[in-house]
Order: sequence, then C-alpha cells, then structure tokens
Amino acid sequence: MPEAAFERLKHLPFEDIGFAKVDHHRAIRQGYAEVVFGKGKTPAQVAEIVRVMVRYKASRHNVLVTRADTKIFAAVKRVSGNAKFHALSGVITIERSKEISGKGTILVVSAGTSDIPVAEEALLTARAMGNRVEHLFDVGVAGIHRLLEHRMKLTEARVIVCVAGMEGALPSVVGGLVSVPVIAVPTSTGYGASFDGVAALLGMLNSCASNVTVVNIDNGFGAACVASCINRL
Amino acid sequence: MPEAAFERLKHLPFEDIGFAKVDHHRAIRQGYAEVVFGKGKTPAQVAEIVRVMVRYKASRHNVLVTRADTKIFAAVKRVSGNAKFHALSGVITIERSKEISGKGTILVVSAGTSDIPVAEEALLTARAMGNRVEHLFDVGVAGIHRLLEHRMKLTEARVIVCVAGMEGALPSVVGGLVSVPVIAVPTSTGYGASFDGVAALLGMLNSCASNVTVVNIDNGFGAACVASCINRL
Amino acid sequence: MPEAAFERLKHLPFEDIGFAKVDHHRAIRQGYAEVVFGKGKTPAQVAEIVRVMVRYKASRHNVLVTRADTKIFAAVKRVSGNAKFHALSGVITIERSKEISGKGTILVVSAGTSDIPVAEEALLTARAMGNRVEHLFDVGVAGIHRLLEHRMKLTEARVIVCVAGMEGALPSVVGGLVSVPVIAVPTSTGYGASFDGVAALLGMLNSCASNVTVVNIDNGFGAACVASCINRL
Amino acid sequence: MPEAAFERLKHLPFEDIGFAKVDHHRAIRQGYAEVVFGKGKTPAQVAEIVRVMVRYKASRHNVLVTRADTKIFAAVKRVSGNAKFHALSGVITIERSKEISGKGTILVVSAGTSDIPVAEEALLTARAMGNRVEHLFDVGVAGIHRLLEHRMKLTEARVIVCVAGMEGALPSVVGGLVSVPVIAVPTSTGYGASFDGVAALLGMLNSCASNVTVVNIDNGFGAACVASCINRL
Amino acid sequence: MPEAAFERLKHLPFEDIGFAKVDHHRAIRQGYAEVVFGKGKTPAQVAEIVRVMVRYKASRHNVLVTRADTKIFAAVKRVSGNAKFHALSGVITIERSKEISGKGTILVVSAGTSDIPVAEEALLTARAMGNRVEHLFDVGVAGIHRLLEHRMKLTEARVIVCVAGMEGALPSVVGGLVSVPVIAVPTSTGYGASFDGVAALLGMLNSCASNVTVVNIDNGFGAACVASCINRL
Amino acid sequence: MPEAAFERLKHLPFEDIGFAKVDHHRAIRQGYAEVVFGKGKTPAQVAEIVRVMVRYKASRHNVLVTRADTKIFAAVKRVSGNAKFHALSGVITIERSKEISGKGTILVVSAGTSDIPVAEEALLTARAMGNRVEHLFDVGVAGIHRLLEHRMKLTEARVIVCVAGMEGALPSVVGGLVSVPVIAVPTSTGYGASFDGVAALLGMLNSCASNVTVVNIDNGFGAACVASCINRL
Amino acid sequence: MPEAAFERLKHLPFEDIGFAKVDHHRAIRQGYAEVVFGKGKTPAQVAEIVRVMVRYKASRHNVLVTRADTKIFAAVKRVSGNAKFHALSGVITIERSKEISGKGTILVVSAGTSDIPVAEEALLTARAMGNRVEHLFDVGVAGIHRLLEHRMKLTEARVIVCVAGMEGALPSVVGGLVSVPVIAVPTSTGYGASFDGVAALLGMLNSCASNVTVVNIDNGFGAACVASCINRL
Amino acid sequence: MPEAAFERLKHLPFEDIGFAKVDHHRAIRQGYAEVVFGKGKTPAQVAEIVRVMVRYKASRHNVLVTRADTKIFAAVKRVSGNAKFHALSGVITIERSKEISGKGTILVVSAGTSDIPVAEEALLTARAMGNRVEHLFDVGVAGIHRLLEHRMKLTEARVIVCVAGMEGALPSVVGGLVSVPVIAVPTSTGYGASFDGVAALLGMLNSCASNVTVVNIDNGFGAACVASCINRL
Repeated sequence: MPEAAFERLKHLPFEDIGFAKVDHHRAIRQGYAEVVFGKGKTPAQVAEIVRVMVRYKASRHNVLVTRADTKIFAAVKRVSGNAKFHALSGVITIERSKEISGKGTILVVSAGTSDIPVAEEALLTARAMGNRVEHLFDVGVAGIHRLLEHRMKLTEARVIVCVAGMEGALPSVVGGLVSVPVIAVPTSTGYGASFDGVAALLGMLNSCASNVTVVNIDNGFGAACVASCINRL
Repeated sequence: MPEAAFERLKHLPFEDIGFAKVDHHRAIRQGYAEVVFGKGKTPAQVAEIVRVMVRYKASRHNVLVTRADTKIFAAVKRVSGNAKFHALSGVITIERSKEISGKGTILVVSAGTSDIPVAEEALLTARAMGNRVEHLFDVGVAGIHRLLEHRMKLTEARVIVCVAGMEGALPSVVGGLVSVPVIAVPTSTGYGASFDGVAALLGMLNSCASNVTVVNIDNGFGAACVASCINRL
Repeated sequence: MPEAAFERLKHLPFEDIGFAKVDHHRAIRQGYAEVVFGKGKTPAQVAEIVRVMVRYKASRHNVLVTRADTKIFAAVKRVSGNAKFHALSGVITIERSKEISGKGTILVVSAGTSDIPVAEEALLTARAMGNRVEHLFDVGVAGIHRLLEHRMKLTEARVIVCVAGMEGALPSVVGGLVSVPVIAVPTSTGYGASFDGVAALLGMLNSCASNVTVVNIDNGFGAACVASCINRL
Repeated sequence: MPEAAFERLKHLPFEDIGFAKVDHHRAIRQGYAEVVFGKGKTPAQVAEIVRVMVRYKASRHNVLVTRADTKIFAAVKRVSGNAKFHALSGVITIERSKEISGKGTILVVSAGTSDIPVAEEALLTARAMGNRVEHLFDVGVAGIHRLLEHRMKLTEARVIVCVAGMEGALPSVVGGLVSVPVIAVPTSTGYGASFDGVAALLGMLNSCASNVTVVNIDNGFGAACVASCINRL
Repeated sequence: MPEAAFERLKHLPFEDIGFAKVDHHRAIRQGYAEVVFGKGKTPAQVAEIVRVMVRYKASRHNVLVTRADTKIFAAVKRVSGNAKFHALSGVITIERSKEISGKGTILVVSAGTSDIPVAEEALLTARAMGNRVEHLFDVGVAGIHRLLEHRMKLTEARVIVCVAGMEGALPSVVGGLVSVPVIAVPTSTGYGASFDGVAALLGMLNSCASNVTVVNIDNGFGAACVASCINRL
Repeated sequence: MPEAAFERLKHLPFEDIGFAKVDHHRAIRQGYAEVVFGKGKTPAQVAEIVRVMVRYKASRHNVLVTRADTKIFAAVKRVSGNAKFHALSGVITIERSKEISGKGTILVVSAGTSDIPVAEEALLTARAMGNRVEHLFDVGVAGIHRLLEHRMKLTEARVIVCVAGMEGALPSVVGGLVSVPVIAVPTSTGYGASFDGVAALLGMLNSCASNVTVVNIDNGFGAACVASCINRL
Repeated sequence: MPEAAFERLKHLPFEDIGFAKVDHHRAIRQGYAEVVFGKGKTPAQVAEIVRVMVRYKASRHNVLVTRADTKIFAAVKRVSGNAKFHALSGVITIERSKEISGKGTILVVSAGTSDIPVAEEALLTARAMGNRVEHLFDVGVAGIHRLLEHRMKLTEARVIVCVAGMEGALPSVVGGLVSVPVIAVPTSTGYGASFDGVAALLGMLNSCASNVTVVNIDNGFGAACVASCINRL
Repeated sequence: MPEAAFERLKHLPFEDIGFAKVDHHRAIRQGYAEVVFGKGKTPAQVAEIVRVMVRYKASRHNVLVTRADTKIFAAVKRVSGNAKFHALSGVITIERSKEISGKGTILVVSAGTSDIPVAEEALLTARAMGNRVEHLFDVGVAGIHRLLEHRMKLTEARVIVCVAGMEGALPSVVGGLVSVPVIAVPTSTGYGASFDGVAALLGMLNSCASNVTVVNIDNGFGAACVASCINRL
C-alpha cells in the first residue's frame, strides 16, 4: 500500500533550515559521518549546515566537508574549533570519534603524483567513516614493476579504491591481481585527449577485470563511501 | 624485487589454445564460474573454449557464456550436453554445482520491461557464481509507489544490482532507501537522446546517493560479478 | 492596460535603437514583463534598453534583466531608481505592477542547495509575469522521504517548474506524483561526468513520466516563461 | 467516470503480471488513455498488457500502443478485435471513447514530409486522450510564406506541438508568432551533421522564443501527452 | 610532371622572417588585404609581421589584424601610426586604399545583440577587402516581423553573411527569402546546450535552404573572405 | 509594417498536395531545377510530387530526385518516362532543358574512389541547374603530385566543389592554389575515428584557406546548389 | 628490384584509370607492397585496380587488398589466380616476393580473442611488406601474468604493434616493458561505453608510456605500414 | 655509460620519495634523459624530484621538466644552478651531456606560428635525448609552395615530427612526400570547431598517408620521445 509507505517515510528525521534539509538519518543509513558537499555553496551556507550538524554534542558522527577552499574553512572554523583543513584535497574534517567499524582495510592505490588530491579525499573519507586505511601512490602501469613490488599490500586489503587519470588502466591491472572489489575513480588529470577525465572514465567502464566498478570523475569521496559501505558488510 | 614478482606470476595456471589463453586461475581468484564472452567470437571458438573448461570432470565450476546466440548455443551444446540457453539475455549456462557460497541475497531491481534482458543476465550470472538471488521488475521512478510497495525486499538484500535505461534514475532512489552497496547498470533501452544508454550511464555516474557505483552499459554480467565478489566478503 | 495603448504598440511593434530592436510587442504577446538577457551585452547596452522600456510611465509591465552582474545593476540603477538586484540568481527586477494574471500557482521545486540560483531565477520571472508562486527546495531523489513529505504542495500547483542538476531524476519522480505539466530545468551543478548539466539534461529528456518537458540548461527564466504562459490559459 | 470506480482503482494502483506492473492508476492521473510503449517488448508481452487493459469492459479509456510493428499488431488484434494500425507512425489505437475532454484545440505543425510519422504519432495520441486536433504539414522555415499563409490556424490553437528535423528552427518561428505554449519535438530526419536528431534537439533547446519547451527526439507521443495535460487545465 | 609543378610553385613570393613566412602572394591571390590572425601570437610577433607588411610604401593592400587585444594594438600602433582598433570585435585595421573592387553589396545580417562582435569582424574584413557593405542587426527569428520589415535590404545584396548564435535558424529563413549565396556564421553566444556555438553550427549545416554554406564558429573574418571572393567574380 | 510583408509573401505560389506543399517558386528563386529529397519519403510520395512537378508541360525546369533507390526510381519512371537513374549516387534526373545559365565552369574535385558517389551527386545537380561542369577525381593530399599535375584545371574553374572524406584536407590545399570560392563537402567515407564524416567536417571548418566554406556531410547536392547560385552571379 | 624499372616508374608516377589514379610510385616510396583499400569500392573497381597492379610481370611487389569480402575476392581471383583470402581479417594477398627487407622482427601483440582480426590484418601487411613477423595473442592486462610469461618475446622485437579494444591499456603496459617503439591500434571490440573503439583510442592517446604512438581504430594495416617503415630504417 | 653503473641502477629500479617513485631505470630503458611532467605537481614536488635526479654527479643523463612555469623554474633553479627555462614551451632543461646517440636527424615541422610552442617542446626533448635536430616552421598546407620549397630538408630527415593545429592536414601532405616515419602532433591551436585540438587529432588519425602515427594533443614531448626511440634503432 503506497500511502502507508509514504506515511512511514514521512516521519524519517531531517531538519529544514530553509535552503537545505539536513538529513541526520542519512548518516545513520549510510555511514558514520555527516557530509557537506562544499562546491556551489557559499561559506555561510556551509558553516550553517555544519553548525546544525555539530549541535548535538553527544553525537559521535565525524563531520566532513568536501570540495572546500580556505574561505569555507574560515567560516567552518568559526562554528567548530577543531575543524582541520587538508589543502591538497580541499577536505575539512571534524573528528568526533576514532571508532573503527569497518571489518577490514581499505587500500587506496593511485597512479601518478597528480592523482594524489583525489586519493587523499578518498583516504580522509574512508577514515572519517570508521575504516582502517592504507595507501599506495605513484604506481602507474607503464612501470608495472612498481606495482608488482607491492602485491602483498594489494592482497591484504578487503576493498580497494583505485585512483587514476590519463588512460585509467590501473584498475584493470589491480583488478586482475586481487579477488576483492575494486572501486575505480577516474581523475581529471592529463591534457588534450584526456578530456578532463573522460578517457580514464571510459577506460575504467570498459575494464576487462570483472571486479571493477566505477564512480564519477574525481569522486574520491563517493568511492570511499561505497568502499566503506562494503567494508561494513 | 620485480623480477621475483614476475617469476611468481609466471607459474599461475592458464592453458594456451592458440587464439585464447584459458585462465582457470581467474575462476579461482574471482568467483566460482568460468566465463566466456561470446560476442566477437565464432561459434567454433566459443565451443573450443568451453570444451577446455568442462574437460576437468571433477571441477565444480559452473560455466557461463554471455552474449551468445542460437548458433553459438548449437556449437556449445555439441561439446556439453547439459548446456541451457536463456534466449532473452542470450546467456548459456552449464550448471555443475548448486553450492551457495555468497553470504546474503543479491537483489536485481529493474526499471522497465525492456530492461529485463540485462537484468536476466545479472540474475543468471549471480546464481552461477553461487549466490541466492531475488528480483524486482518494472519499478520505474515515475510510478514511485510501485517501488515503495516493495521496500521490504530492498532492505533484505545484502547487495543490490539496479538495472535501468532512459534517465537511469532508479539507482539514486533505491540507493537512498537502503544502506547496502548498489551496483548500477545502465541499459541501452530507449531512443533519441538516450544515446544507446549514455543518458542512463551519466545519470548513474552523477547519482546523489553515495552507495552507488556503476558498470558499463548493458553489463549485467559485470554487475553480478562485482555483487558476487562483495557478497563473498 | 488601456486598449488604446495596446493598439498603439501593436502598430509600432519594435523600436530600433541601433544595436537592438526593442520589441514591446513581445511583452504583449508573450507575457506581462519586458525582459533583457544581460549576458553578452555591455552595462551601457542593457541600461539603454531598460531606459527605452521604462520610458512609457503608464505601462504596467514589470521589467526583468537576467544574467546580470553588479556592473550591469549599477548602470540599470541609474536609469531606474527602483531596480532591485537579486545576487544569487543575478536577476534585476523593476516592479511596476503587482497584478496577478495567472490562474493558479506555479510551484518551483529544486533538488540541491546549489540548484537554488536557477530556481530563484524561475521564481522571480514567474512572479514578475503575474503569477502566484511557491517553492520547495532541497528535495533530491536520494532522500525521497523529503519530497513525499510535501506531496500536498505538489498536488496544489497548477504548473510545476522542476530544477535539478547531477542525474536530473527529480522531474521523473515529481511527474509521476502529479497530473499537471512539469517543466524540467537541468542545471550545470555537479562535476566530472555531469558535463556542466548535460547529464541532467539527458536524464530529463529521457524521463519516463509523460507530463515532463525540458528547457535549456540553467534556463530558469525560460521555464518560468512557459509555466506562466500555461498558467494564463 | 464514476467516483466509485476511481476510488477502486486508487486502492489497487497496479496489476502485477510478472514482467510488468500495469498501472491503471496512471491513466487516471495523467490522461484518458492507457498506453504501451511497444519497442523493446515482444509481441506476446504487448498483447498480454493490452489484454489486461481492455479487460474492464466498462472502462472508457482508449488504448494506445506506440512504436509497434505489424507483428505486434497481429498479436494485439487477437486480444482486441477493434485495434487499428497506423503504419506511418507505427501506432495501434483501440478506441473506446470519443469524448472530448480537452478545452481547446491542439495543433500539430511539422516541417517536412519526413517528419510526418512523428507528427502522426502526436496527432493520434492527442486524439486518443480526448482532444480536438488540427494539423499543418510541410511548412519548413526556408519557405516561410507557407507558414505565414496559415497564421490564422496557429492563432486558433490552445497548445501547439511543433515537429521538425534538420535545423529544428520551426518552433522558434512559430513560438514568435503565437502566445500559447509550443511543445517542440526534434525528429531524427536528416543525415550527416543532423546526428539523428541531435542538431534539431539542440536548436530547439536554444530557441530564442520563450514559450518553447522540448521533448526527446521523435517523441511525438510525449509531446501530445504534455499538450493534452496542458489542454485539460 | 610534378617536378615542374614543384618548380613553378617554388618561385612564388613569400618572405621568411624566422617564426613566420609572410605570404604577400596570398593577398594577390585571395583578396586586397594582408591579414594577421592575432590569437596565439605575441604582440611582438604580430607587430613584426605587420612591419614587414607595411614596408612596401607603394602597396595599396589594406592590413587587418583579427583577434587582437589592446596589448597587440599598442605594439602594432608603434610600427604603423594609422592603425585603428575596433574594440568590440578586436580587429585592427590599417587602411591604405579605399578602392571598391567588389561588384555588389555584401550584407551582414545578425540575430542578437551579442552576435554583433562577430558581425563587426565580418563587416570590417569585407570593407578592407574592397567591398560595399551594409548591415542589419538584431533580427532574430522569434520576431520574424523584424526581419520581414527589411526584406528590401535582403534582396538588394549580392552576397549575404548571416551571423547567429543559439539555435542558428536565421540563415535558413534568410536563405529562403533570397536567391544569392548566404554565408552562415555560427557564434558562441548562448549558454548550456548551445555548447559554445555547436548548436548554431549544427543548425546551419542542416539548413533546409539550399543556398547556405557555413564557416567555423565565430569566424566572421572567414565568412567575409568568402563573400568578398564571391563578390569579385 | 510586418502585416504587409506577410501579405506579400502570402501570394507566393505553392501547391498543397496534402502531405507536401510543392514550392514551384523556389525553383524560380533558387535555381533552374525542381528538386525532391528522396530519403524518408515513400516511393508513392516521391512519384506524386514529381507528377505535380512535370505537369506543366511548358516548363523548362529540370527535375532532380536525390537519395533515391531503385524502388523510388520505378515509381518515378511510371509518372515520367524519360527519368534516368544514376545508381552510384542514387540520383534520378528528368532533363527538360539543356540551357546553360551559369557563367563559368563548376569543377568538382574529389579525394578518393569512395568519395565519387557524393561527387557524382554534385556533378548531376550542377548540370541540371544549368552549369558547365568538369571533374577531377582521386587526387588525395597524400599524393600531392597528382593534384599539382592538374593545377590548370583548378585555375580555369569559376567555382570549385571539393569532396573529401577521412581527414578532409583537400579543400585547404585546393583553396590555397586558387582564388575562387571552394565549397567543401565532407563525406562519410572512412572508418573508426572518421566518425562517419565528422573528422572531415571538422577539418574543413578549420581550414586555414580563407576561401573555403562547408556544407553538411555527404551533401553533394547542397554544394552544387550553392556553387550554381554563385555561378549565376 | 632493377634500378631501371625503378627509374621508369619514377617518371610515370601514376596511371590514370578514370575512377582511380594508381600510384605505383607510392609503393616505391613507402614500402614493397601495392595496396588497395577495399571498403567503399565495388568488386569491379577493386579488380580493375589489381589488374593494373599485377600487369608488370617483372614486378616483385606483393599486392594487398584490405577490408575485402568474398565478393571482392571472387572478382580479384579472376584477374590474379594466386590471390589468397584471409577471412578473419578480410585481407586478400597476392604474394610475388618472399624477400625480407626489414632489419628486425615486428611483433604483433593483441589483448583479446576478438582483437585477432585486426591483429591478423597487421601481421599480413607487415609480412607482405618484407618483414619477419611474430605474434602474441590474448594477453590482456587483467591477467598480467600471461603477458609477463612472454617478456622475452617482447624484448626480442625491433618494433611492436599492440592491438587492443575495451580500455586499451595493453600498450601502456607493453610500452613500459620495452625500449622499442610501440604502435598502438585501438579496436572496435566491446560494447556500451567502448563507443566502437573510442575508449581504447583515448586510452592509448593518453598512455603514460612515452614510446607509444597511435593509429586509427581497427587500422591494423596502418600500424603495420608504420612498423615496416621503421623496421627498414 | 659504464656497464657497472647500469647494473647498479638495474637492481635499484626506483627511489621512493613518498609522493613519487623516481624511476632512474626508465631513463635507461627509454632514452638518455630523466623527465618530470610539471603540470599538476607543486613547485616543491618538482624540485624534490629534480634534486633526486641530479644527485648522482657522474650521471650523464640530461634532465627535462615539461609543462613548467616560472614558479616551478624558480624552485628547480635552487636545486640545480644550470637549469635553463624556455618560456615559449614551458620547458626546463638541465644539460649534463652533449653526446649524440641518435643515428640520423629528427626534423620538427610545424604549420602555423601558434604551433611553435609545441614544436619547441619537441625540439628540446629530442635534443636532450641525444639527437641531431632540425626544424621547419610556418609551412601550412594552404600555402603548399612554402612546404615544397623545403622538400630537400624533408628528405634528409630520418624521422619527422609534424606539429599542426586547426585541420591537422600537414602530416598527410608531409607523409606523402617522404618515406620515413612521421609522428603527428595535433595542437590545441584554433577556435570554435577546432575543439581545442580535436579537429586536428581526428584529421591526423584519418590521415591517408600510411607512414603517419599520432600522439596526444599538444604532446610535443611524447612525439620527440618516440622519434628519439626510433632514431636509436
């Protein structure tokens, strides 16, 4: 009976603050962090959302602001003194819990130096959501020996987030070496026919390794969310 | 030491049959089925690969041929009498084990009647890989009550494969209703500005639900592989 | 408006001011507002067009400048003292009539906080054209309960303008819940594979709800024009 | 329609026939016809859905199958003797009511001879949904006098559906001549840089006439749905 | 005998100034102006090329620099005192002859105010190449009466350059009203699905008027070159 | 006064035959041939249009059907005994006049053997419209000596139609060798990254020769129309 | 080849057979084979070109027809009895010399079974042009051990042609393992977001290995030409 | 280079400096220069990588930083006093050896003045990798005589790098004039339908000259790498 279903949903918790409806429930349903996507919001809007999020002192949810800049950070810092800014990835973290709820380790692998910002976004997100995290940087496929050197690390992970720009070939190679799920994140690294990450995105969607799925270009946050959601299963 | 890594890899098992190198190891690493991608191979090639796969009588690996047609099926039937053809999805299955190794249920949800072939490919693949499977068909977002009616089924799944063409909005709605991973499969259903599944693909990559990842257009097989790989964690 | 003035304008359908032909007639044919599209025009050009528009003191047409910035506003303010600037959407309004000519209510629904600028452009346009307007913000499909909470508001509207970026799924869900026309506006919100609104545009063009039509990306103005034109029928 | 019947359907909003969930409710919410999209469904599936639709003898809903072919028609004919096939547009109609519920006339204008199939789909849909319809064919913008010749017809319509391929310029010109809403339908007519209707689609989305909205390429059905939904306001 | 052909070509005049080979011959073959494309060249490079061009005092060739800015103009002004800068279009002209060599009038028609920069580039180029020029601005197709009002001007031209952004429909309408060649120039005016002029470009390439040809987006210069080349026939 | 303009246009001649409005006037305005675009019309429709065209026995207009096939030809042959089919290009010609009205020669140059069908369409069209025509086939730029060998032919033409697929470089080279207008026709020849003529189209739009304009992919007919229209100036 | 014959051809650089200009000279300049691209030519045209090519009995040039089918082969067989058809790749070879003129070995590596047709085209071309050839099939990057197993073969080649569809990652991995040039050939293998080889093409263009260059999709012939041209240095 | 040093590096194939793994080995395998891609790295990161590279005083490898700016140069200058900045191309060179190891001359040909930056990147790279280099600038195909004038230079090269934007036709013409390999580099020069180099890229991929291969847009560095790798064969 749909009307009943409507009714049930109606009572789920969110707070209406005018320009936004803060969905505390989502944190419960989908992880142990409350998240604000900073891009396209004014510093004042972000700060106001964060203020609502940190209001419940007893809450153990970490707070994460992604795609932030120094202006947003300044505004957030004013409403929460222990906010921390990670400049490379533009992530703000407010740690309220160090509890580890994920069962295994999430490994973030990235191909080149310029993929590190996206990889960092993934790492911080996964950590804020209560996971043990490891990383492996600068292991592009044109120097395959650098990746093979670290096979042990690959096989010890429960979920792998694989970040790569340009041809986006890394997830295929990594996917072939392990049996756990690989979340591939194309990055907008590159120039010319990389088309701001489209080449990498297409490469990953066409991966011949069957344990690879893909998220949006530069979406380190999303990859970590999925990885975290898998790691809690 | 990369040379050592090379050496280790060198002894992994595959059989070279000229035009193909059958990788039994992959079945071990990545699932409990041996798989042939039928498209772009001649019936003779597919049959020969299947022949090698079913040679080890003791093996309990199910065999799956995807993107097959009646000609390929005829050729496969000659090398394996208990091959079965599923016309809607073009999948051939050779069942050699009914063992369930996945921990929970994989639910395949699809939006419209014309998405069913891809959904069936996902269902058959997930089953062949040792998972309990359920399905929920024809629950497109323009009649949201049809989906809400089945919320219970959604919340009982451990992994969800979500198949949709046209605007590809279903995974966002489903992803918002559950906390488990949702593997989204865009389909080439539609016409005009659906661009053979590109609209659905882009919709899914931009999903505002953070537990959604995406595989290639019409790749029901791949979605089920990932789902199965997650379900064994 | 006096029939005489109407007649006079009918026979003087546009004024040629060199770089532009101001079409008073269009305001009569297509709404109760005179409109300047600010983008790609110099502040001086916009101000000159506005000067011609407000010259007829007796006219009750509201004047609207869209895609304006503070420089354009400064220039317009000099020719019309009661011009008002709406910074979020970059709209300048000069109100000369509060008359309501639309028969019902136009409801503007938007998916995320960063879609609000486009939604505001639609709201201001619809109001300037003589319509009662309502809005419903931050009701994205990944938190479907936030939308369902407001079903009453949806069913009370005579026309709905539905603004969404990213996967653009909102109009399909809204369209399925009501029986009135839904004008969908994709926004350039998002990143990566949102391709500056293309993903949302394609999603909306492929909507499985049959009461949905689409306007250009970020075209809140156009959506409100059509909505207003329907609301006067 | 008796309020009682309406109530009954409201509480039985869809019938589940396995591969499809027939949504009688949608006909009530969104028009006076029940519709099956034929493409991507087997003749047997279409016929079964139609069978369910025509089962309630008392119902006055017309039935429409779009994107059908002669095979589908043969199957449908077997379950409903008075089904009629319109070969140009591939539409099957089963008329059960001639009642006119739309307030004004829907005019379907098309640009070239090869746009007629899509225009016919729009005409048949609008008529099946209870509207008075008129048409105006072969009035492309390169012979603008042919269109101007028929200005009267344009100004007498309450809603206009405007079908055009190639450069898709017709809706802009028509939109500029009338003050009612114009639903633009790009067609896949053309070759080379028409890209199967993309050129026309883009042209229409960028229309400089502010009373134009757009539906998917070749979507004559959708345009008529929206037009009908507007015409009942 | 290709070698002979090579030899003949070898003696055609150009001056090698290191980073560029100034082709005086081209001015003879293709018009009565020497032209420098300013974009992508440093002010010093442009000035040096202009210096070589104006060195022959007796030459009557006008000099034109397109896509210039104030920095380039400052550098050019130093090597040629009577250089003139046209800020709207970014064109620098050095007039050395007022001779009219074109047989008829080249009319430049443009659709909107923001198309004027490109139209001005076309006008200045055509004039520098020895043609009588006329213009007709702000006659977009959504107000078709503004165009029809000026039919006389259209029919008096020997060649028409037609500049339009957004849906690019103007050349089709103009082309249908005249029997002379129409050179269509798409502009990057617009937003969203105009894709920086692609929508207009496609519209023009698909024009149903058979006397329309197309040049690159924003290429007012090129359109005027072709128009001038036709006007000298 | 637009109403007057409307009135004047209203009396231009066209015949309304239901599905088409035959525009005899266009033949007068735009050439000396009446033309039917065969693609997307049924054989019966084409034949009916031709029947109307040839009805006026005294007319000296040649009739041209483009994009025809053998079925269309059979139908046309029945209404006009002296119709002739050119299989390579799919053009049907009905010659009723051999009069030459063009002032000079139109030269059709093509790059490869597979570009010949489009070149033939251009040749037949130009001839039907009363022009002297010449051709030069298989002179691709990778064997530049083959083109240079024929420079004389190039310099004798008054207008050049230049047909090329793949990289579409021929018009740039030809344009640099002559001072007359060059109408470039990209063809859908090629494979892979030729994208059915897009590569050639883009190449031609970016031509560095300033006397080159472009028509749609495979549009030999359109190129000849423009060439003819220029050649009558 | 006798110097005299070479001289004679040098002064008769092409033979004009109407629809084609057979360029014997190119065979001398660019390889030791005469080549016809079969696609888009009629069987009769191909046969006539081959007839001219094989007319000089003394010539030692091998003849190659690419993209041929059985109809073309039948026609060619009639003019040259020792023509041989390779069905997988659609290549016809007429061997007239077994001389090896390339200095080293050209190795053709391919990723999947369905890439073999393109790989075969490359192999036959390289051999016909006088090179020693080797191949390595079915060594996709998701099973990296299969490639590493054959590292010796990789390091023994003087030039490598690397054929791959889907994500096109193979050339990056191969390029990183060797120091010789790698010619990458994307194939149209795959489905969905492979976009007929575009994904592989982009992957290869963005290769992070610096010894990789790219040819058109499915252009095994072109890759072998370049490889052969390098191997003769 | 002493065999001992080679051996040492072979067993220490990369140095891990945290954010990057400096691969001295690659310099040995793939050329005689160590290279840093500057874009996307901070000045500090680049300088640190360079510091590691120049640490081995005895090494004779030249060091190259591409896509650098003045900030990166300042940082690099601090760790290596003899670093030199080439502003046009943004390349930093640190010369430690003048040894010529390439067998012939690498000729860099470019089409227009604005292609020179990319051509300079290719020249500096080729020289740093131990090759004799020559260049030929501003020889676009629309003035074919400028190219033919320099045929001798073309025929003296062992490998040609051909840099062109806009229509990208130069490699086809050059490829047809020589028998050595031509590495084509599309540049992002141009505007409108050049799509930042895509038009040139497609043109080159579709080149009808069979000795042409292609690298990424603006990738002068990559072209020189491949040319150098060929020139050492």
